[in-house]
Amino acid sequence: MDIRDGDGVTSTALLTDQYELTMLAAALADDSAHRRCTFEVFARRLPHGRRYGVVAGTGRVLDALEHFQFGEAELAVVARFLPAETVEWLRDYRFTGDIDGYAEGELYFPGSPVLSVRGSFAECVVLETLVLSILNHDSAIASAAARMVSASGGRRMIEMGSRRTHELAAPSSARAAYLAGFDATSNLEAVRRYGVPGAGTSAHAFTLLHAGTAVGGADGVGEHSGADGEHEAAAFRSQVEALGIGTTLLVDTYDITRGVATAIEVAGPELGGVRLDSGDLGVLARQVRDQLDGLGATKTRIVVSGDLDEYAIAALRAEPVDVYGVGTSLVTGSGAPTAGMVYKLVEVDGVPVAKRSSHKESRGGTKKAVRLSRDTGTIVEEIVYPAAGPAPASNGYEARELLVPLVRGGKPVEDLPTLSDSRDHVAHGLISLPWEGLKLSAGEPAVPTTFAN
Amino acid sequence: MDIRDGDGVTSTALLTDQYELTMLAAALADDSAHRRCTFEVFARRLPHGRRYGVVAGTGRVLDALEHFQFGEAELAVVARFLPAETVEWLRDYRFTGDIDGYAEGELYFPGSPVLSVRGSFAECVVLETLVLSILNHDSAIASAAARMVSASGGRRMIEMGSRRTHELAAPSSARAAYLAGFDATSNLEAVRRYGVPGAGTSAHAFTLLHAGTAVGGADGVGEHSGADGEHEAAAFRSQVEALGIGTTLLVDTYDITRGVATAIEVAGPELGGVRLDSGDLGVLARQVRDQLDGLGATKTRIVVSGDLDEYAIAALRAEPVDVYGVGTSLVTGSGAPTAGMVYKLVEVDGVPVAKRSSHKESRGGTKKAVRLSRDTGTIVEEIVYPAAGPAPASNGYEARELLVPLVRGGKPVEDLPTLSDSRDHVAHGLISLPWEGLKLSAGEPAVPTTFAN
Repeated sequence: MDIRDGDGVTSTALLTDQYELTMLAAALADDSAHRRCTFEVFARRLPHGRRYGVVAGTGRVLDALEHFQFGEAELAVVARFLPAETVEWLRDYRFTGDIDGYAEGELYFPGSPVLSVRGSFAECVVLETLVLSILNHDSAIASAAARMVSASGGRRMIEMGSRRTHELAAPSSARAAYLAGFDATSNLEAVRRYGVPGAGTSAHAFTLLHAGTAVGGADGVGEHSGADGEHEAAAFRSQVEALGIGTTLLVDTYDITRGVATAIEVAGPELGGVRLDSGDLGVLARQVRDQLDGLGATKTRIVVSGDLDEYAIAALRAEPVDVYGVGTSLVTGSGAPTAGMVYKLVEVDGVPVAKRSSHKESRGGTKKAVRLSRDTGTIVEEIVYPAAGPAPASNGYEARELLVPLVRGGKPVEDLPTLSDSRDHVAHGLISLPWEGLKLSAGEPAVPTTFAN
Repeated sequence: MDIRDGDGVTSTALLTDQYELTMLAAALADDSAHRRCTFEVFARRLPHGRRYGVVAGTGRVLDALEHFQFGEAELAVVARFLPAETVEWLRDYRFTGDIDGYAEGELYFPGSPVLSVRGSFAECVVLETLVLSILNHDSAIASAAARMVSASGGRRMIEMGSRRTHELAAPSSARAAYLAGFDATSNLEAVRRYGVPGAGTSAHAFTLLHAGTAVGGADGVGEHSGADGEHEAAAFRSQVEALGIGTTLLVDTYDITRGVATAIEVAGPELGGVRLDSGDLGVLARQVRDQLDGLGATKTRIVVSGDLDEYAIAALRAEPVDVYGVGTSLVTGSGAPTAGMVYKLVEVDGVPVAKRSSHKESRGGTKKAVRLSRDTGTIVEEIVYPAAGPAPASNGYEARELLVPLVRGGKPVEDLPTLSDSRDHVAHGLISLPWEGLKLSAGEPAVPTTFAN
């Protein structure tokens, strides 16, 4: 169970579907393996009713690519079903091709060629699963997160969904949420690995811990089991002493009004925040705000959590909420836990190829894309066009090429954007959507995509 | 980007929410950290309309627990926000308590105490996120997978969803699917790490690779770009030569009838299988079966894939399908990507504790559970009762205790079930459900749970 970059075992080569390697074996045997190919990643559609998607995971794809090598341990596994020549070929595997893609944090729409991988069939085909796993996961989370950030109206957003997703997906979810505009995460591995700011409050367990037995308060006065308020006061006092006055106290273990009174009694009106994790959060937030203000705690923030999604966040917009803590709905993509992107062979030795079976047609040929915008910055159209041809006419709009170089000759290009750069890119992208693009209701993609021939 | 057990860096200690460690700091400071506690894991409800859940991930929790230690790298991260005494305490951290739980593969219902973690507050509280992440993910996948296995009526099931989930969640998904009755996986890391049988067919890319340029066939006769059938024949010939006659050919890149004819022409009637990945799979399966039989390929299997979920699988039950390949819906829990289990403090120094805020009440006290069955094996009831009290009356039914020892004094007990044992346990559990429990339609939990006082 390893979780870290570093000096340990680091191969990503088995995060792969078996069929990629059996196709490789057949292609090596018939000599088609060395044909020059382009594979493109795109989503046929957005999740139901979504108006845009956010490309996320590109940086992680590049990291994973660097570790896509077959050591002895990996070779031993694939040798069980592959011919010896294929195993030997994999022993020397390093991706040597080129990759272009939408910048991490770019918005995307149905058919947007978000990644273009070029090289021999052999070196490209084996990357399918790894590339898709990363982009599909991270883009699903970032796309949901961006809607939540829009809905929050600029309030502070904390990602706290680690417990509702795979333990090793959790740091990636936190990264994707931060990319999309969240301010902080509860996940410590995301803090360590990606530098996402950490945050946290307290759990009901901490208050309950102080029930049932005698408690020595900070003032040395013993309190005994009995009224809930006493346990709560002991827990709050302990938390404030250990973590300082800026901490956030969880006030809904028992009665909330009593909890708020106790919190301010213990901490004073300079208390950093109180958290509400249950009940009608809108009604409660107003009551608690009034109560806090009445107690002189006018700066004490109200943190709300508990089954929040973008709709619940939007519904609380008129309420005196300062911070949203979002868990389950974020890490599960708010109903769309995967972005549904595919990795398709579109060109072989310069010739476009495409399958033609029903309902899953794809467009052949290596593509590029431009996004056209008004002077105001508002996007009006995305045009996907053959890479071999000229850029389409911009008709007086600003035209921006969407595919940027990511890998050349197997090596990541220099000066790739940081996570912070990509976060700015998302924020800028959301501002540039037509106004209806930020509506939470189900609708069509916010920007029409044209496929030029 | 590490993915393996082994000699490398292996700490799971940062797969944790920050608040667990700040609560720890406060509890160490006020001396409540050493109180004896029980934390229980349970689901308040099943996902909408589900009739049962499958406990999965228990084995992975025990592995992760062994690696829950703070090395210098982990300590450096937590030292940024924790007092020095807490950091020192974490340096020596090893879980020394006891864990009981439902056996991996056991069915569960709302309120089932699927894991019971006992020890000091300090040593238990820090495990919350890691335990929940694993159980919530794996149980969600296994619960969806079990419904698909039931719906398949005993046909072969291949998990192929890696590309639609986080790259490191994929092997765990494959493990959970296998646990629940799937036969094989496409994911090579799951093959390596968990011994799940591997499987795979071929992608459209392999056929398309053979389009557009001259192809040297196995017989030395060059074929040139032109008709689809020629490319397809070249691709099929290559695959059969490399992988043998038992391989499965993907016949829907172009025209399916033509594809099937080409497949048998190239491979002969002993061909292992053909795969259909698009279109109306029921209609196509019948047509293709007739065509194959007419060509003498009566043993050639029909593999279907493409957006299958339990409902689509059930709808194909009357059709001549031999193998189902399931991807997206499996790894996303078929609409329920997390099991929604929680980790709650229920007892402190022998005294039951419970929060009482609205809508999220929990039941205090350490619990056990028995399941009552008829002589026929059919479950009639689950009874959750106080661990301190006597087992409830079984009223003439067979009574089976559901919580089994998993960890004693911090060490896993001996003779823990293997993945194969747990797989048998699921199969047995599904047989023991009342008949309506296997219905796919939305309904109530198949077994009533009684909470005895």
